[in-house]
Amino acid sequence: MRLLLINPNTTPAITDRVLKVAREVASPGVKLAAVTGRFGGRYVATRATYAIAGHAALDALAGYRGAYDAVVLACFGDPGLLALKEVCARPVVGMAEASLAAAITVGRRVAIVTGGEAWVPMLHEFVAAQGLNDRLAAVVANGADVVVLGGAGLAGLAAPLAARVSVPVLDSVGCAVRMAEAVAALAPRRGARGSAKAAEATESVGLSAPLRDLLRQPR
Amino acid sequence: MRLLLINPNTTPAITDRVLKVAREVASPGVKLAAVTGRFGGRYVATRATYAIAGHAALDALAGYRGAYDAVVLACFGDPGLLALKEVCARPVVGMAEASLAAAITVGRRVAIVTGGEAWVPMLHEFVAAQGLNDRLAAVVANGADVVVLGGAGLAGLAAPLAARVSVPVLDSVGCAVRMAEAVAALAPRRGARGSAKAAEATESVGLSAPLRDLLRQPR
Amino acid sequence: MRLLLINPNTTPAITDRVLKVAREVASPGVKLAAVTGRFGGRYVATRATYAIAGHAALDALAGYRGAYDAVVLACFGDPGLLALKEVCARPVVGMAEASLAAAITVGRRVAIVTGGEAWVPMLHEFVAAQGLNDRLAAVVANGADVVVLGGAGLAGLAAPLAARVSVPVLDSVGCAVRMAEAVAALAPRRGARGSAKAAEATESVGLSAPLRDLLRQPR
Amino acid sequence: MRLLLINPNTTPAITDRVLKVAREVASPGVKLAAVTGRFGGRYVATRATYAIAGHAALDALAGYRGAYDAVVLACFGDPGLLALKEVCARPVVGMAEASLAAAITVGRRVAIVTGGEAWVPMLHEFVAAQGLNDRLAAVVANGADVVVLGGAGLAGLAAPLAARVSVPVLDSVGCAVRMAEAVAALAPRRGARGSAKAAEATESVGLSAPLRDLLRQPR
Amino acid sequence: MRLLLINPNTTPAITDRVLKVAREVASPGVKLAAVTGRFGGRYVATRATYAIAGHAALDALAGYRGAYDAVVLACFGDPGLLALKEVCARPVVGMAEASLAAAITVGRRVAIVTGGEAWVPMLHEFVAAQGLNDRLAAVVANGADVVVLGGAGLAGLAAPLAARVSVPVLDSVGCAVRMAEAVAALAPRRGARGSAKAAEATESVGLSAPLRDLLRQPR
Amino acid sequence: MRLLLINPNTTPAITDRVLKVAREVASPGVKLAAVTGRFGGRYVATRATYAIAGHAALDALAGYRGAYDAVVLACFGDPGLLALKEVCARPVVGMAEASLAAAITVGRRVAIVTGGEAWVPMLHEFVAAQGLNDRLAAVVANGADVVVLGGAGLAGLAAPLAARVSVPVLDSVGCAVRMAEAVAALAPRRGARGSAKAAEATESVGLSAPLRDLLRQPR
Repeated sequence: MRLLLINPNTTPAITDRVLKVAREVASPGVKLAAVTGRFGGRYVATRATYAIAGHAALDALAGYRGAYDAVVLACFGDPGLLALKEVCARPVVGMAEASLAAAITVGRRVAIVTGGEAWVPMLHEFVAAQGLNDRLAAVVANGADVVVLGGAGLAGLAAPLAARVSVPVLDSVGCAVRMAEAVAALAPRRGARGSAKAAEATESVGLSAPLRDLLRQPR
Repeated sequence: MRLLLINPNTTPAITDRVLKVAREVASPGVKLAAVTGRFGGRYVATRATYAIAGHAALDALAGYRGAYDAVVLACFGDPGLLALKEVCARPVVGMAEASLAAAITVGRRVAIVTGGEAWVPMLHEFVAAQGLNDRLAAVVANGADVVVLGGAGLAGLAAPLAARVSVPVLDSVGCAVRMAEAVAALAPRRGARGSAKAAEATESVGLSAPLRDLLRQPR
Repeated sequence: MRLLLINPNTTPAITDRVLKVAREVASPGVKLAAVTGRFGGRYVATRATYAIAGHAALDALAGYRGAYDAVVLACFGDPGLLALKEVCARPVVGMAEASLAAAITVGRRVAIVTGGEAWVPMLHEFVAAQGLNDRLAAVVANGADVVVLGGAGLAGLAAPLAARVSVPVLDSVGCAVRMAEAVAALAPRRGARGSAKAAEATESVGLSAPLRDLLRQPR
Repeated sequence: MRLLLINPNTTPAITDRVLKVAREVASPGVKLAAVTGRFGGRYVATRATYAIAGHAALDALAGYRGAYDAVVLACFGDPGLLALKEVCARPVVGMAEASLAAAITVGRRVAIVTGGEAWVPMLHEFVAAQGLNDRLAAVVANGADVVVLGGAGLAGLAAPLAARVSVPVLDSVGCAVRMAEAVAALAPRRGARGSAKAAEATESVGLSAPLRDLLRQPR
Repeated sequence: MRLLLINPNTTPAITDRVLKVAREVASPGVKLAAVTGRFGGRYVATRATYAIAGHAALDALAGYRGAYDAVVLACFGDPGLLALKEVCARPVVGMAEASLAAAITVGRRVAIVTGGEAWVPMLHEFVAAQGLNDRLAAVVANGADVVVLGGAGLAGLAAPLAARVSVPVLDSVGCAVRMAEAVAALAPRRGARGSAKAAEATESVGLSAPLRDLLRQPR
Repeated sequence: MRLLLINPNTTPAITDRVLKVAREVASPGVKLAAVTGRFGGRYVATRATYAIAGHAALDALAGYRGAYDAVVLACFGDPGLLALKEVCARPVVGMAEASLAAAITVGRRVAIVTGGEAWVPMLHEFVAAQGLNDRLAAVVANGADVVVLGGAGLAGLAAPLAARVSVPVLDSVGCAVRMAEAVAALAPRRGARGSAKAAEATESVGLSAPLRDLLRQPR
C-alpha cells in the first residue's frame, strides 16, 4: 500500500518531520511519499493562510506524478479536504478528520491540543462542520475523555505525554496513517452522485498547468 | 460611502453584471468599485474552484489600491469570507452572509435559489457554519417563507420573479450592498481579541507581492 | 424614507431617548416618528410586563395614523414582534432582531449587554427562537467576538464603551434604524402564504377600536 | 384539590366545553372553576390574538377571587404561560405543555392535531421553546408514535378517534387536568432564584386594577 | 389503581425503601407492589451493572404474577425502560423519565442530584436520549431552576432539602408514582405501529421460563 | 494481532458467518476468534432482545479465556458497547460504531441498510447517542453519500451491491475489523478518569462466575 502525504504548510522541515513519524507508525509494508505546498504560509495558523492552503493542497496533489492508494492531508485542520476528495479518485483522509474518527471510538468527549491561538475557533468550526460537535470537549480543555495531539509540531509526543495525562492520548499522525490504511483497504468506489462523486470539469485561468488539467479532468 | 466588490469568479463579465445591479440598488451617493479574481475557475461551482476562490479573493483584496469603507465579497457562497475579515480593517460582508442576515428579518424559513448542483451541499454547509441551520427551509425548496436569489447570474430577477412566487423574494446583490452600507455606517471597530481581531503577521512563499505584504501586515 | 418607532414601555421619556439616538444614527433624509404604549409596565423587565407589551405594541401600531415605510419595535427583546409582522404590510424589525442580524456579520459569537436580571433567560429564549443560539456567546458574558448594547437605557453608550472593550461594540438603536432602512429599501412583498403572509381576519372583544379594526382587516 | 382553568379565548362557550370535559377526566374529589378572558380574539388562531391572549390570561388570573391549588392555562399553545408562572405562587400548567410532558412518556415522536393553519408554525415554535423539538414528529403529521389532540375544539374526541388511529391518542384537556393534579400533589415551592422565582414588583399604567395590583405584588 | 414497582438493583432493602416512600406519596386508594431483580449489581452504578439491569428488569416483569395498571421502573436512570414498554401492555414510566416530565413543568433548567460519579455521563446520555438536553442544567450542578433528587437513596429528602435550596426540589419517587397514576388514568392504547407497538414474537435461549414466554408473546 | 469477535446473537451460525467474512477482510497476520452469547434472542431485533444482549455480551467477554489485542462487538447496533469498554482493558469497537467512523471519512451523509423494522428507531437512537445525527441520511434511505451494510446478515454483499448502487458501499464487518486493527495499533491507554476509565469494582448476585469476577475486578 502506498500513501501520499500532502503538507500545505510551505516549510519542508515540517513535511520531513511528519514523514518521519508516519514511517514509525505505519503498518509493515506501507510505502510513504510526501509533497510540500509550493505557495502559502510558512506555517498555517491564520484564516488567510488556511484559505490559501486549500489551493496549495490541490496544486500539490495535481503536481504529484507517482501512484498512491490513499492520500493523507497532513495539516491538522485539513485545509481543502473536501476539494481534494472531489478531484481525487482515491480515498483522501485529513489528519483532523482521521483523528476525530479514531478518537470517538476511544472516548466520549474528545479534546484537541494544538499550537496557535487562531486555531481554536477554526478547529471548533471544523469539528462542527464534521457534525461532531457533540463529541468535542473543547480545544485545549479539561473534561475530556480522550486527547488528540494535533499537528506535525506535536507528532511523536503522544507516548511521553501519555504518562502524564489521565486520559488516553492519540497522535494525529498515527491516526491519519492508520485510518488511511483502513479506508484504503475498504476500497470505497467513487459515487455516481453525492459527496463522493467526482467534480464536474471546470475551465480556469491563472493556475498551474497540472491543476488546470486536474480541474478539466477530475479523477 | 465607497464599497469595494470582490468577485473571485475569474470571468470579468460576471463582475460587470454584479456591478451594474449593485449600482441600481445602492443608496444615492454610494460609490462602487469592483475587482475580479486573477486565477481560479471561470465560474465557481465545485469544491475545488471554491477552495481556490478563497485564495483569489485574498489576492484581489491585497492588490486593490483604492480606498473603501466596506468590502462586498460578490460570490454567493462567500469563499474566503472569514479570511478576508481577518486581514481587512474595514467591514467585509459576503453576498450569502448578507442575504441570510436580511432574510431572517423578513421571513421565518429562508430558501436559497441558485444555479449548479454542487452548490447545494456547499450552501447547506455555509448556512450551518453561519449557525443559521434552523432558519433554512432548504436550498431550492418548497416550504419557505422567503426566497433569496443567490448569485450574480440571478441578479435583477427578484422583481420579475416576485410576481410569480407566493413569498417575498430577495436579491442577493441588493442584500449585500444594503447590508454593507448599514454595517459600514455602524462602523464597528477592529477587536483586540476575538474573531474581529486582525490576523497575526505571517511569512509566506510563492504568493503575489501584495498578498505577501498583506499577510506580513494585516490591516 | 419614514420609520415608525413603537415603544411598548409605557414611559414617554424612554421613547424620547430612543428617538433622539435614532435621529443621530439614521441616514440623511430619513424621517422618524415614535409612539409609546398606552398600557403595561413602566419598564418592561419581567415576563408579565413582556406579555402585556406584545398587546400594547399592537395597540400602538393600530392607533397610529401616519404613514411609514418600516416599523422599528423599539424595545430590546422585541415583545410582539411576530404579531406586528403579521398585521403590518410594511417591514417590521425588532431592536434585538436587527442587532443580531447586524452583529453576526461583524463577529462570530455575539454577547448582549442589557439591564435587568429577568431579561437574561428571556433573551436567551429570544435568541433561541431566532435560531441563532450557535452565535450567542452569552448574555452579559466574556468570550464574545462582538457586543450588542441592548435597549434604550444603553443607547448612545457604544462609542464611549468601545474604547474600553476589546471587541467591537454595536448599539441596538443604531442597528435597528440602519437595518430597518436596509430592509425597507429591499421592499420585500407580503407573502400569499408563509410567515410573511397577512393574518386572517379575526373578531375580538374588549379591544381598542383601532386594534379591533386592525384584526378585522390586517394590512 | 381545586383547579382553576383560565381560557384566554374570549368565547364563553369554549370555556364551558373545556370545563365539561375537564370534569369528566378529573380525579374524584377535584373541584374545578374556570374563567374566560375579558378581551382579545373570539378564538385565538393568529399571532396577534395569541399575543393579546397572554395579557388576557394574566388579567383573568388577577381578577379571580377564589382559592385554587393549581392553574390550568386552557388554551392549547399556552399564551402567557411563563408570565402566569412568574406571578402565581401555585403551579401553573399549560394544555400544550402538559400534553407534551405526558406524551413523551407514552411514545417517542409526538404529533399534534389541532385546528387552524396559523397554529402550525406557532406550535412548532412552542415545542422548540420547550426544548422538545427532538420529540416532535410534526404538527398534523404521519410518522408519529403518539398523537395529542390539541385544544378545546377537539376535547372528548380522543376515545372515538382511538379506534381509527394506529397509535395512542391523548386528549389535551385530560393531560392538562391530570398533570396539574400530579404537579399540585408534588407541591413544588417557589424558588428564591431561577425561573420559578416570583417576579419583581413592577409599576404599570392603563391595566385593570387587579392586574396592576398583581404586578405590584406578585404572589 | 395498582402500580407495580420494579427495582433492578438486587438489594431488597432498596426496594423496601422505595416502596415505603411511594406509599407516602401515592394518591389515596392506590395499591402498590414491588419486585426486586434476581441478578445483577447490588447497586446499579456502572455501565456494566446498568446493562445487566435492563435484562433483570425484563426478567422481573415477566416473573410477576399479579395484576397492575401501570409499571414504575424504580431505578433512577431507567435501565431497560424502552424494552419494558415494548413487552408490556400497560403504561411503563421510569423514575428518571417521570421526574424529567414533571420537572419541565416546574422550572426551565433541570438539575439532577444523585449518588455515584459514573452516573453523571450515563444520566447525561439518558437526558439526551429523551430529547431533553435543552432543559438540563447539569447533573449535580448550579444554575438550575428546579432540582430532581434522583434515586431511592435520596427518597424522602426533598422536603428537608427544600428549606436549604433556593429552587424547587422534586423527589423522583414522588414524580414517578404521580406520573404513573396520571398516565394510567389517561389510559393510552397500545399502538398498531410506532414506538408504542408491542414487540414481535422472538425465540430465545438460556432465559428464565417467564421471560422466554414473554418474548414469545409480548403483551 | 489478535481480535476477539463477540456475537450476542445466540445463533452460532451467525457467528460463523461473521467470522468467515472477517477473515477475508482482515490484514495479513491478524488472528481472529469468536464467541457466541449464551442466552438471549436467537436474533437481536427488538428492544427486549437488545437489552438482554448487552448482558450476554458482557457474559461472553467475561467467559473468554484467550488473549486478544482488541474486541469487536459483532452485532450491528452494538448492544452493551459502553459497558464492554468499561470492563475491558483492550480497545473495544462496535460494528455500528466502527462503520460510522469509517463512513464519515468516505461521504458526507451516511445511510444504513439493515434488516428488521424495529431496528430503524433503535439505530436512529444509536447514531444520535454517538453524536453523529448530522451525518445520518437515514436508515434505509435515499439521499445518502455513502451506504453502510449493517449486520452479519448482509456481510459480503458490499462488493456485489456496489455495482448497482450509485454511492460507495461499506460492509460493516470490514469496517469493524479494519477499525479495530487501526485502534489497536494506536494502543490507547486506559484512562485514570473519564469514559475510558475502568469501572469501579461492584458486588453482584445471580450472575455467571466469570462475570461476577469481572465486575469485582474490571480489567
